[in-house]
Amino acid sequence: VAMAGCGWARAVRGLLLDVSGVLYDSGADGGVPIAGSAEAVRRIKASGLKLQLCTNETQATRESFVRKLRALGFDVSVAEVTAPAPAACRLLRERGLRPHLLVHDDLVPEFAEVDKTNPNCVVLGDAAENFTYANLNEAFRLLIGMEKPVLISLGKGRYYKETDGLKLDVGAYMKALEYACDVQAEVVGKPAKRFFESALAELGVPPEQAIMIGDDIENDVGGAQQCGMRALQVRTGKYRPSDENHPKVKPDAYVNNLAEAVDIILQQL
Amino acid sequence: VAMAGCGWARAVRGLLLDVSGVLYDSGADGGVPIAGSAEAVRRIKASGLKLQLCTNETQATRESFVRKLRALGFDVSVAEVTAPAPAACRLLRERGLRPHLLVHDDLVPEFAEVDKTNPNCVVLGDAAENFTYANLNEAFRLLIGMEKPVLISLGKGRYYKETDGLKLDVGAYMKALEYACDVQAEVVGKPAKRFFESALAELGVPPEQAIMIGDDIENDVGGAQQCGMRALQVRTGKYRPSDENHPKVKPDAYVNNLAEAVDIILQQL
Repeated sequence: VAMAGCGWARAVRGLLLDVSGVLYDSGADGGVPIAGSAEAVRRIKASGLKLQLCTNETQATRESFVRKLRALGFDVSVAEVTAPAPAACRLLRERGLRPHLLVHDDLVPEFAEVDKTNPNCVVLGDAAENFTYANLNEAFRLLIGMEKPVLISLGKGRYYKETDGLKLDVGAYMKALEYACDVQAEVVGKPAKRFFESALAELGVPPEQAIMIGDDIENDVGGAQQCGMRALQVRTGKYRPSDENHPKVKPDAYVNNLAEAVDIILQQL
Repeated sequence: VAMAGCGWARAVRGLLLDVSGVLYDSGADGGVPIAGSAEAVRRIKASGLKLQLCTNETQATRESFVRKLRALGFDVSVAEVTAPAPAACRLLRERGLRPHLLVHDDLVPEFAEVDKTNPNCVVLGDAAENFTYANLNEAFRLLIGMEKPVLISLGKGRYYKETDGLKLDVGAYMKALEYACDVQAEVVGKPAKRFFESALAELGVPPEQAIMIGDDIENDVGGAQQCGMRALQVRTGKYRPSDENHPKVKPDAYVNNLAEAVDIILQQL
């Protein structure tokens, strides 16, 4: 690794880490850690840098998500996770919205306190196997029947990588419903500015002293840069070489993986 | 019905008719005829006007589609049906494309003569119950794995009405795959100009002497007008009052149903 020209690594006090594709590759089998990432998390914490996981994960509650990560060897806690579902709950409360949920079964408990009777909006997450023809038609009919359809999407990712291959992400289904109902979804989660700001607030570090590390050129890198943060793309997870020619987004640096990013950052402390 | 101001009905030699929502309301139960439509088709034929059905139906072969319509009392033949699947087969042959099909089981025989080994494109139809999470991921993976993804969509309708309610149409799933793969689908079927032109060729009438009658403001009315035809929207099928305020498309006239359109047109002959 060339350490010259690593000005991007200076004056850092906190890191926001994407999870899937950075810490581990997810999958129906529970997923597998990415080599060096568990050790990298330990080294970040030992260094005194602050750390917050900033994920669009919506297939599980934060509690079960953290249990899974701990079982894979990651030293993380629920308070260190910023995820879309709690952000969506805040938004629903603020606006008096009662959601119909099209989400993964395991995410439903995050919405336990929310009134879901007589829905006046649809909340869309990465529903995975719940993305059935019947469920999509049901969500569509509710939306098209509203005077002014309100569609809230927990992320707008195009796809992600699981151990058994690439999967369509929530953004694809969001586009299907947007088109059918001629509405624009409100996105909660990356790359929404408000979501990064709330992750930074939990990190307790201003954007100019924080670095986002992710595998998604648009949602991680582009979104964080829009908030005034530096952002790295790792060459793990859903990374594809064509990302390096992205027409709009250019990371502050590429790193082969989280371990390499941490090597460089810690050397600059 | 006010017959004054029906200049739009003059100098007509042929009619293109949309089917679902104009002749009948489709449904898992086989569907139900729209009152007066079977008689209207008989009156068109008795008048000497030419008639062609111009449909985006992709849930069945033309043969079984016509069998269903005849069972519902419509005097129509296979030669009188212009549908997307045969048009797609011509396009595949012209360009040496080998499709992966994500279509309704009952449409597959239309592609019997097409080489489907080692696919280099995806053909998307209204797959209905075949729009499963697994099938959508499979089509997505094939596309994203192509150097230059080719997605051919049999229509781009937003939704349609069946006897048990509104259903998402192929256009919604097309948008999902377009977004995930960052490609633009090639649409075969309405509102593609080439599709209307081939329907007119089969009708044997130039656009200025033909009227399109449909329930879809964009795909039927907008598409036909782009080809130089007049076009009526019926207030049956998926018609919704808000269509009458469409920002871009204005039909040459509204009629309550096909029977009323035929009343007016025959009086002007």
